[in-house]
Amino acid sequence: MIKIAIMGLGTVGTGVAKVVSENAKQIEHRLGEALQVKTILVRRYKDGPYRQLMTDDFSKIEADPEIRVVVETIGGVEAAYEYTKRALSAGKHVVTANKQLVAEKGCELLELAQKKGVSYLFEASVGGGIPILHPLTQCLAANRIEEIYGILNGTTNYILTRMVRTGAFFSDALREAQAKGYAEADPTADVQGIDAGRKICILADLAFGHQVPPELVEMEGISKLSLRDVKIAERAGYRIKLLGRAVRMPGSGRTAYVAPHLISEEHPMANVEDVFNAIVVRGNATGEVMFYGKGAGEMPTASACVSDVMEAVSSGPRRDAVVWSPDEDGFVDARELHTRFYCRIEGSLTDAAMAFGQVEVLSEDGETAFLTDRISGYDAEEQSRSLNMLACMRVLG
Amino acid sequence: MIKIAIMGLGTVGTGVAKVVSENAKQIEHRLGEALQVKTILVRRYKDGPYRQLMTDDFSKIEADPEIRVVVETIGGVEAAYEYTKRALSAGKHVVTANKQLVAEKGCELLELAQKKGVSYLFEASVGGGIPILHPLTQCLAANRIEEIYGILNGTTNYILTRMVRTGAFFSDALREAQAKGYAEADPTADVQGIDAGRKICILADLAFGHQVPPELVEMEGISKLSLRDVKIAERAGYRIKLLGRAVRMPGSGRTAYVAPHLISEEHPMANVEDVFNAIVVRGNATGEVMFYGKGAGEMPTASACVSDVMEAVSSGPRRDAVVWSPDEDGFVDARELHTRFYCRIEGSLTDAAMAFGQVEVLSEDGETAFLTDRISGYDAEEQSRSLNMLACMRVLG
Repeated sequence: MIKIAIMGLGTVGTGVAKVVSENAKQIEHRLGEALQVKTILVRRYKDGPYRQLMTDDFSKIEADPEIRVVVETIGGVEAAYEYTKRALSAGKHVVTANKQLVAEKGCELLELAQKKGVSYLFEASVGGGIPILHPLTQCLAANRIEEIYGILNGTTNYILTRMVRTGAFFSDALREAQAKGYAEADPTADVQGIDAGRKICILADLAFGHQVPPELVEMEGISKLSLRDVKIAERAGYRIKLLGRAVRMPGSGRTAYVAPHLISEEHPMANVEDVFNAIVVRGNATGEVMFYGKGAGEMPTASACVSDVMEAVSSGPRRDAVVWSPDEDGFVDARELHTRFYCRIEGSLTDAAMAFGQVEVLSEDGETAFLTDRISGYDAEEQSRSLNMLACMRVLG
Repeated sequence: MIKIAIMGLGTVGTGVAKVVSENAKQIEHRLGEALQVKTILVRRYKDGPYRQLMTDDFSKIEADPEIRVVVETIGGVEAAYEYTKRALSAGKHVVTANKQLVAEKGCELLELAQKKGVSYLFEASVGGGIPILHPLTQCLAANRIEEIYGILNGTTNYILTRMVRTGAFFSDALREAQAKGYAEADPTADVQGIDAGRKICILADLAFGHQVPPELVEMEGISKLSLRDVKIAERAGYRIKLLGRAVRMPGSGRTAYVAPHLISEEHPMANVEDVFNAIVVRGNATGEVMFYGKGAGEMPTASACVSDVMEAVSSGPRRDAVVWSPDEDGFVDARELHTRFYCRIEGSLTDAAMAFGQVEVLSEDGETAFLTDRISGYDAEEQSRSLNMLACMRVLG
């Protein structure tokens, strides 16, 4: 019997307990031993099926030699960080879905895990139930990863889908998402791109092997997105998607950012709708591979945690344990990246052409919407200085 | 220095040597040691950059204690089977892209590997460079896998794409694929569904944990597919794709087969075109996740092999090593599966309705094309006995 503890009994924590009991047969068959939740750390005792397992005292878990894996689903940094360090120090594997903690402290926690000969695993922190981190670090290990980009946040993708399909304004689509339980009462982390930003940091850490400092990653959300741009883009054969992107730059640099992008309707990602996520990894040998599925939700995310628990107890120590260097050098501003830009200005085509040279006009009716040639973000800023810019977004590809 | 051997210097074998040298820095960084191809087994010596490494004597590899991993890219069963057994018996890890060997002898070779404390890895045998087998067995391990389906063969998908886009007949599209190097001179294994069949066997073996006997898996290709059906399907909002499918049936049964299917143009797989592959895995907790990318080609497939080499030398023995039971019980005929069917008959709507009851008409002009309700394959056979059936395909979903 393999015994584990869960810290935090919110959506994901409850899901973990459910997956362990509902798929018990499957799991025991794979592990050759049953898996059992022994203890659940809560802040306040609640009635329910897990009442007998609850404790509000972390040291009960820390000091219990029977508990081999701790699943941390507390969220945030403070308590989660403290308990994770103590659990790893006590020689327990730790599994988490906590993207904020991994993005901010992953490097340090992985080092500690390696020192203690245990695993710190966080497949569930990016893409919910979509396998992405293991494939990236294992199945694509023989590649030099050139770029990763993806629809990393289901809430904003749901809002964008509603804007496209029903012509809803951002604010109405957001209310609809809240009513359906896809967006939280305080939607800031989602709509401002912060959630996607944490995930792209983790992907970049793993892909490039260096700590990406979250505070240097520009995160632009969709709260300022106008329905007008959604419609102009669609007529021109594009969809607007909120993408997190991490790119290896010429030389040894790398960058990462989150922003809405125009992507061609021919791109496989154009049809990723509602709360679905999709992540593309481009390796120098394997080309582009895409991973697609529900990026959140109780059971998908919980099943990723439980798979990590199984991974932790199944595999011996690896000689190439996943770590990344704390060295932040080489991170460059995303404005160095060259792409085409979509712009909408209050002004004429002549104004656009005077600022940007040759452009591709998408619409002209008092305002002018157009696509520039490939330029850097610095150039886009510089050249648009004389214009009254109403919207400006990068074009993918 | 970690030394490996390659058996067979065709497309994939050459790619493996290239990836090892081109991504040497990446690989050494991950492994903490350099990786080197020491010996290459060939049937006939050839000039070229690898001339110094060639041997035509397998026992040179078998008896070389320095060689820790053997990459088998011979293909087929006979020699590949013999050498794989001997390499595993000599305590060497074996990595392969050989889907035929894995589909037919995987169970036995995995058992042998486990007995010898080494790994037999074959990520490259399905989906080329797309990570699918590791994610299926590892990241989705906490799920009961209900179904897997996918576009598993790039050649046939290229042909289908040409038929849809340019209205080419099958025979012309095939010649075009051959001219571009996407189809072999003898295209039988691809167009008859045999290649896709081997891959769905491997996926089913891993998903359900029991050997699927390839000879029981019905494999229908696209060689009899009519342009007429492609066009009728498209007007009705469907695409025709060649799918391999493996399904867990009610009770403890399971089935697998390959056949052309109608899939809705809204399905993410509808836009998988040209030589791309896509595989959907449906788990009871995680829902549907899709993996997408180039399913073949020198560098993608080779990079999957090299990643497996890295996996083999990095990880200690696992307590849940991937194996499946040789027990073939529980495999049921795919005709037990219920779906809607697309039929085109020489006859009227009345003929169709008399045979199938209520149907959805797609086209009527002397011939009649229609969709049935959900019925089993047995029922479809039985009920269509009185009809002159020109085409019959399952509808996905």
